[in-house]
Amino acid sequence: MTTIKDVARHAGVSVATVSRVINETGYVHEDTRRKVEESVQQLNYTPNEVARSLYKRKSRLIGLLLPDITNPYFPQLARGVEDRMQESGFRLIFGNSDESQKKEQDYIQTFVQNNVVGVISSTNDPGTASYRSLKIPVVFLDRISSDRPAVYADGREGGRLAAQQMIQRGSHHITVMQGPIHIRPAQDRFQGAIEVLQDMGIDYHTTQTSSFSFTNADRWAKELFEQYPDTDGVIASNDIVATAVIQEAYRLGKKVPQDVQIIGFDDIPLSSLLSPALSTIRQPAYDMGRAAADLLIQLIEGTAGEQRTIQMPVQFIERETTRKL
Amino acid sequence: MTTIKDVARHAGVSVATVSRVINETGYVHEDTRRKVEESVQQLNYTPNEVARSLYKRKSRLIGLLLPDITNPYFPQLARGVEDRMQESGFRLIFGNSDESQKKEQDYIQTFVQNNVVGVISSTNDPGTASYRSLKIPVVFLDRISSDRPAVYADGREGGRLAAQQMIQRGSHHITVMQGPIHIRPAQDRFQGAIEVLQDMGIDYHTTQTSSFSFTNADRWAKELFEQYPDTDGVIASNDIVATAVIQEAYRLGKKVPQDVQIIGFDDIPLSSLLSPALSTIRQPAYDMGRAAADLLIQLIEGTAGEQRTIQMPVQFIERETTRKL
Repeated sequence: MTTIKDVARHAGVSVATVSRVINETGYVHEDTRRKVEESVQQLNYTPNEVARSLYKRKSRLIGLLLPDITNPYFPQLARGVEDRMQESGFRLIFGNSDESQKKEQDYIQTFVQNNVVGVISSTNDPGTASYRSLKIPVVFLDRISSDRPAVYADGREGGRLAAQQMIQRGSHHITVMQGPIHIRPAQDRFQGAIEVLQDMGIDYHTTQTSSFSFTNADRWAKELFEQYPDTDGVIASNDIVATAVIQEAYRLGKKVPQDVQIIGFDDIPLSSLLSPALSTIRQPAYDMGRAAADLLIQLIEGTAGEQRTIQMPVQFIERETTRKL
Repeated sequence: MTTIKDVARHAGVSVATVSRVINETGYVHEDTRRKVEESVQQLNYTPNEVARSLYKRKSRLIGLLLPDITNPYFPQLARGVEDRMQESGFRLIFGNSDESQKKEQDYIQTFVQNNVVGVISSTNDPGTASYRSLKIPVVFLDRISSDRPAVYADGREGGRLAAQQMIQRGSHHITVMQGPIHIRPAQDRFQGAIEVLQDMGIDYHTTQTSSFSFTNADRWAKELFEQYPDTDGVIASNDIVATAVIQEAYRLGKKVPQDVQIIGFDDIPLSSLLSPALSTIRQPAYDMGRAAADLLIQLIEGTAGEQRTIQMPVQFIERETTRKL
């Protein structure tokens, strides 16, 4: 096989010069260029693709955009993405969007400036121009898009499971905490729970939480028991909010799970260490991250199949905040 | 002031051509090049430095290496770093080292390949060649280095505070959980606690934990109460381990803080949501991240002063796992 060295020798120039000609990465005198091009043709030289991408500095950078890494659910996603990317030699440029469109656009722009070859994003706005005008593959993670590649958990089934378990384990006055309105998976799980409660004719109330973060979680928990003091089962919008509900129940002298059962959502690592340990609906966050990375790599390498939206299964994890069956 | 447009007009070429000549970023015919260079000289044109660095693709990328983003202490650090970097238009390439030297070296290497202009690292080995041979500024975060820029909390004082509070609040048989031997801040806080316990002549035991993560935290908590059943005060190696100790005490029917007081270390966000809420020694993780970013930016921009190691203060946060004074 002809190498770049053969071409350099044949044309009587340095390897660096041949590289500059092939990759158009620097000034080469026109006569020299012509000589190199003739040698390439005569020797039938095909540049090695790997070397070519190195010379061309085609990056192996991926942009990863998450709402907020300090929310304990997202590090799991990030870790799954990173581990899979690392296996294939990709690196991550990382940003927190704080669910701000402006910050998100800024990040997307600098991702592009830094020549990322793909983007994984947990955006609330998959339809915006920032994404539609991108010329590189994008995978939405933990977010649902009907027409774009996406990896997310089956939130509706998660909500259904939570409600079924609450009812089976004997709660009669259930409060469902509705997560942020603008986040589709949060609404899916809420809808799933309500469906089951209505079908079974169970008495229920709903409360609204506007984010998934620590800030305000204790206030929402407090308000819940003030508004609905006879609640004997709480389906929390996520594990963090559930943790605040456990704490508030403890402060009010309510026994968990005897007086009130609590089910979270996510299964963040700390959930198993709470006292009592939290029963929850597990989203396979780490695996979701890996799956998104896998799909993005396939899209970058042109090997992706027809299936470009991946819905991952959820499961009920029984711990100590629900009664035994 | 002369602009690149003036040069282009004067030379009778496009702005893109002038840029190619100035930045040597593509092929330009020799005649054209000469014409542009003459115009640059005649008009006394100095390329705008910002534009120049953009055209030259001088990156504004920073490498950030943390042990494991799924440990709830590190997202706070990462967030502090990112927020400060974002304010100055820098972006982060992020990696988890898992405390593996091999992984760390791989990351450092790809950071360099991607033209990062600085590195922030929570490494266990600040002295290795990977760092010493780097030609770009490095700041160690949450790690101590005597001769290299570093930002860390006052672990020794943290350990002293924890022991003092335990004693003042009435514990007589204290168990101190020693964190990973190879992590200097962990040993500092351990030493600080032991110093005070010895000075005060208090009965104490020590146990060993080999990491700060969720894995095994419950086992260590179990072993602690098996080995030292008369323990009435636990100084945990961090908040995660403390959470496991609360849970184990709860399982054993021990009342917290009446039967056993518990003090953590870090003040991760979830600590305030536990039941009972965790008393702990707070490290200002977010501010430490910001300070490290700030120092690195100063080093990159050549404005750093003499003070290149920053020790941040710690404080005792009283919640519900310690008795009232």
